[in-house]
Amino acid sequence: MSSSSTRSFSGVVPPVATPLLPDGTVDHASLERLVDYLVASGVHGLFALGSTGETAYFTDDQRVDILRTIASAAAGRVPIIAGAIELTSARIVETSRRLVATGADAVVTTAPLYTLNSPAEVDRHFRAVAAGIDAPLWAYDVPVRVHSKLGLELLMSLGRDGVIAGVKDSSGDDVGFRRLLAANDAAGHPLQLLTGHEMVVDAMLLAGADGVVPGFANVEATGYVRLWDAATRGDWEAARGEQERINRAFEIVFQPQGLSGDATGVGAFKAAMKARGIIDHATMAFPTQPLDDAAVERIHGILAELDLLPVQAS
Amino acid sequence: MSSSSTRSFSGVVPPVATPLLPDGTVDHASLERLVDYLVASGVHGLFALGSTGETAYFTDDQRVDILRTIASAAAGRVPIIAGAIELTSARIVETSRRLVATGADAVVTTAPLYTLNSPAEVDRHFRAVAAGIDAPLWAYDVPVRVHSKLGLELLMSLGRDGVIAGVKDSSGDDVGFRRLLAANDAAGHPLQLLTGHEMVVDAMLLAGADGVVPGFANVEATGYVRLWDAATRGDWEAARGEQERINRAFEIVFQPQGLSGDATGVGAFKAAMKARGIIDHATMAFPTQPLDDAAVERIHGILAELDLLPVQAS
Amino acid sequence: MSSSSTRSFSGVVPPVATPLLPDGTVDHASLERLVDYLVASGVHGLFALGSTGETAYFTDDQRVDILRTIASAAAGRVPIIAGAIELTSARIVETSRRLVATGADAVVTTAPLYTLNSPAEVDRHFRAVAAGIDAPLWAYDVPVRVHSKLGLELLMSLGRDGVIAGVKDSSGDDVGFRRLLAANDAAGHPLQLLTGHEMVVDAMLLAGADGVVPGFANVEATGYVRLWDAATRGDWEAARGEQERINRAFEIVFQPQGLSGDATGVGAFKAAMKARGIIDHATMAFPTQPLDDAAVERIHGILAELDLLPVQAS
Amino acid sequence: MSSSSTRSFSGVVPPVATPLLPDGTVDHASLERLVDYLVASGVHGLFALGSTGETAYFTDDQRVDILRTIASAAAGRVPIIAGAIELTSARIVETSRRLVATGADAVVTTAPLYTLNSPAEVDRHFRAVAAGIDAPLWAYDVPVRVHSKLGLELLMSLGRDGVIAGVKDSSGDDVGFRRLLAANDAAGHPLQLLTGHEMVVDAMLLAGADGVVPGFANVEATGYVRLWDAATRGDWEAARGEQERINRAFEIVFQPQGLSGDATGVGAFKAAMKARGIIDHATMAFPTQPLDDAAVERIHGILAELDLLPVQAS
Repeated sequence: MSSSSTRSFSGVVPPVATPLLPDGTVDHASLERLVDYLVASGVHGLFALGSTGETAYFTDDQRVDILRTIASAAAGRVPIIAGAIELTSARIVETSRRLVATGADAVVTTAPLYTLNSPAEVDRHFRAVAAGIDAPLWAYDVPVRVHSKLGLELLMSLGRDGVIAGVKDSSGDDVGFRRLLAANDAAGHPLQLLTGHEMVVDAMLLAGADGVVPGFANVEATGYVRLWDAATRGDWEAARGEQERINRAFEIVFQPQGLSGDATGVGAFKAAMKARGIIDHATMAFPTQPLDDAAVERIHGILAELDLLPVQAS
Repeated sequence: MSSSSTRSFSGVVPPVATPLLPDGTVDHASLERLVDYLVASGVHGLFALGSTGETAYFTDDQRVDILRTIASAAAGRVPIIAGAIELTSARIVETSRRLVATGADAVVTTAPLYTLNSPAEVDRHFRAVAAGIDAPLWAYDVPVRVHSKLGLELLMSLGRDGVIAGVKDSSGDDVGFRRLLAANDAAGHPLQLLTGHEMVVDAMLLAGADGVVPGFANVEATGYVRLWDAATRGDWEAARGEQERINRAFEIVFQPQGLSGDATGVGAFKAAMKARGIIDHATMAFPTQPLDDAAVERIHGILAELDLLPVQAS
Repeated sequence: MSSSSTRSFSGVVPPVATPLLPDGTVDHASLERLVDYLVASGVHGLFALGSTGETAYFTDDQRVDILRTIASAAAGRVPIIAGAIELTSARIVETSRRLVATGADAVVTTAPLYTLNSPAEVDRHFRAVAAGIDAPLWAYDVPVRVHSKLGLELLMSLGRDGVIAGVKDSSGDDVGFRRLLAANDAAGHPLQLLTGHEMVVDAMLLAGADGVVPGFANVEATGYVRLWDAATRGDWEAARGEQERINRAFEIVFQPQGLSGDATGVGAFKAAMKARGIIDHATMAFPTQPLDDAAVERIHGILAELDLLPVQAS
Repeated sequence: MSSSSTRSFSGVVPPVATPLLPDGTVDHASLERLVDYLVASGVHGLFALGSTGETAYFTDDQRVDILRTIASAAAGRVPIIAGAIELTSARIVETSRRLVATGADAVVTTAPLYTLNSPAEVDRHFRAVAAGIDAPLWAYDVPVRVHSKLGLELLMSLGRDGVIAGVKDSSGDDVGFRRLLAANDAAGHPLQLLTGHEMVVDAMLLAGADGVVPGFANVEATGYVRLWDAATRGDWEAARGEQERINRAFEIVFQPQGLSGDATGVGAFKAAMKARGIIDHATMAFPTQPLDDAAVERIHGILAELDLLPVQAS
């Protein structure tokens, strides 16, 4: 692994959304503004090309293009971990190499997609990907998309052997995550463990998580930074207070009705980001359907109530 | 769409396995022999790069390489439909174009993978893929891998509008398939409907299916051709008899114990193909784990009992 | 086991619906009429207190009450198998004994509900129930309700040991059912195997099923009797033709929109039964919600188109 | 509702295990000792006849018998909520009335089992049960057993209307539970919200839960009482420390291998309870399979390491 492995990921590491122009191509100007907003807000790292970044919808060329802008805008101020979302090991290595060459400090990937593999095969999969790339590898546990869960033994074995440097946990299994935190501590903390469950960050930090990957930070990053700071100094009441304020704002993602999971989450974020002036258009990647006006209206209402409007200068 | 669209797919259309050398690279000699065996056995088309072909494990370059050999060996004797298994529309179009350029007469793909889309978005997805390629498009319904089912209304709408030319149904939903058969007939049969459920082909043909995609044909293709011929002439007792004989042989896929779904199915086929002399090695794509000797032994026993051994000259 | 065990179940064995008065109590007059209609139509047995009979919604006293009327109306003309749907072994035995005392010739039950059991525990469960009752026991495989599947080895072991006399398969797993048919034949046919998949009866009979449990027979029983007769004499084209006619009528169950699974299926049957004059009210068990007028209208339209209206004298 | 409704449930409310004699009948002496141990340890209420109490395996007569002993041993020192686990509304009312008559201060039940109902039907279900009994009703959200989740809107509507007094959440959906906590606070806290996720109680209390239903309290109740006290005084580091100690002990439930879910969880608790002298036998309800000696050995090892052995006088 390269020297890039010396850069680690903890604290607030937002999954960077991918602003698009109305024609569906990348809105690089908005993307630069977004990265500036995030870094200026005090986040500790950037997660490029994750689910919130709609990465699965882009070709590899587009992915490189997006990452290039993120890396250029970040300008080394914070480390960047990039998602290599592909079907299987060899394909992931191909994609990952391009991402590392474009500026990713680390790569994160999942178990194989579409295939029907055993835990032993998933273990071999991660080892092959790690061996094929020149950057730290992270495991992304997101059963709602991958349709299998990365087990405790698997992750700890990969961690102890230095195959993976960390885990982004979006498993929805709080008991499993708590056991992973304990096992990781018992093993000398080989893994950095980030939670993707942005509505319970106070609780997960109390439980020992190393950080969070909050999609809502694309809308408001300062709250999560304050939450992290409160937790770091042991002020759990303040952490909870900040979390509860964030959660009231997070209700924006429950406003779209009858749309797909991707349209709902990313759509709400992009509508709010546009309302706050962070990006210019709320366009989502094809074929995701747009929010209707009523949902956007309700999102504006929630933001206004929490003084997150009028449009701030980013 | 090109003139290739005039070639249609019905009858027995085996998913061609991908023989590998012990080092994991494609065994082109065995692949040629396999294609020759299938065509000589009387199959009516070839399904290249499907799940039985382990396509998800290969890079796009490898896929092109595999398809080139299949097309060359088939030499126009039967039409070829190729799987373009990728995450989303734009990526599928990229892959499909290479496959069509390499000799695929048609392309088959699934709903998006990894993403969380609504039926309306899946509809747009198929329309975008069809618009982006110069060959007939088929829909592949395989919930065990895609984790969502293609609905009746969706498929019929795509069929009536000429977006898709057919469906390969591996949904495991016999009632849904029966309703699709009826709706398709009522609409003037715009779709060709192939079943992937190779243990119930007699029943599905009685119900009106246009054909079958039997992985076991890689082991013995003649049985399915006989079954098809019996059904075509309305001799359902003969069709059932042939199906029952095939099913006794198909028990090979239930012999591996404790392995993954991919190892079990493809592993049993490859072990039997090697035993029959159709291919040289039973190697599976990385990271799939090999069968143990006991399972291979049991597979040999089943083949022997049914006089499918000793090794036949292919 | 009692001499009742000499009565077996094959052919057409409809799950008897439970007509209710508008106040939710059992409409015994309609129930008698329904049983008369079924027996007069030539069915070969009756399945009392199944899912179509809404049995789970009734107390044990109500169940006994319902079964008493069915038995009295059937008057020994056909055998009766009764569902004992309860959580676990001891509770099932309690309920079953009352059902047998009330006239059930056999009892059918599922794996335990609510609990988290292994196949070995499910095996012990069925053996304990069989040992506790004085009538043949059947296994009911309905994963959509029980949320686990009864495995091939389990069923064959129970069959070979004389613990269960048959299986009602509503598993939706046509390949699994085909394997069960083959294993049962190989073992000397210890089990009677009935399919609950009423849209593919022709195909399942071709595959070797011993009969069918068709909910739609409550609406029109004569079609399934004709289908069975055609299959019995090997006229598969006639069987398919009858199935296809039935399936056009069966579209009634796809007319309700936005209702629960129970409201949709039973509601469509009851609406059609009322329209045909077989029962007096379409009331469903509490808390199932009624169909709206538009759905009932569409159901009437389908029946009319197939000459199943105007109201026939039952 | 009766005056019993004035007794509320918060803090530590263990689900009382049901000790059995080797012949499978209730071990009332051990049950009394267990209840004494729990109350003496400072728990705030008792949850009788829950999943840990193996209630689904018992007949109604046995349930009454078990509850009578619990109520008698508790002797009014803490309130008792009893599980009425049955299929549907009318059956639940029958069972609940017997439980209330036997001494339950409140009743808890789930959505209907086995049936296929809509949220609107589940809403009617809870309202009918509440109307039929003379005690506060709680909702039990346990998708792993009921196979559906109780939604936020449903629970808040039932709470605002006074239909249910609280929720026991074993949903495994921490984000959903956090949203429920927020919605409940916004509505004036009509519901008491207890978590069943005993490995993350510190985090759930920080998030605002009103208490916990910890199965492990049957093994050691004092830890959860200390955890609760620490959280109550805002000492979150102490709460976390206690949770982490408990979690090391909770690893006992991951020691059994290859057994069912019920055998694993209850089996580990009972093995540990017996080792500590709280109960006399580790027998589980039929047909649950016993732990093997190796698992029991590992459980003893974990307890010994944490100084939870040698056998304490209860």
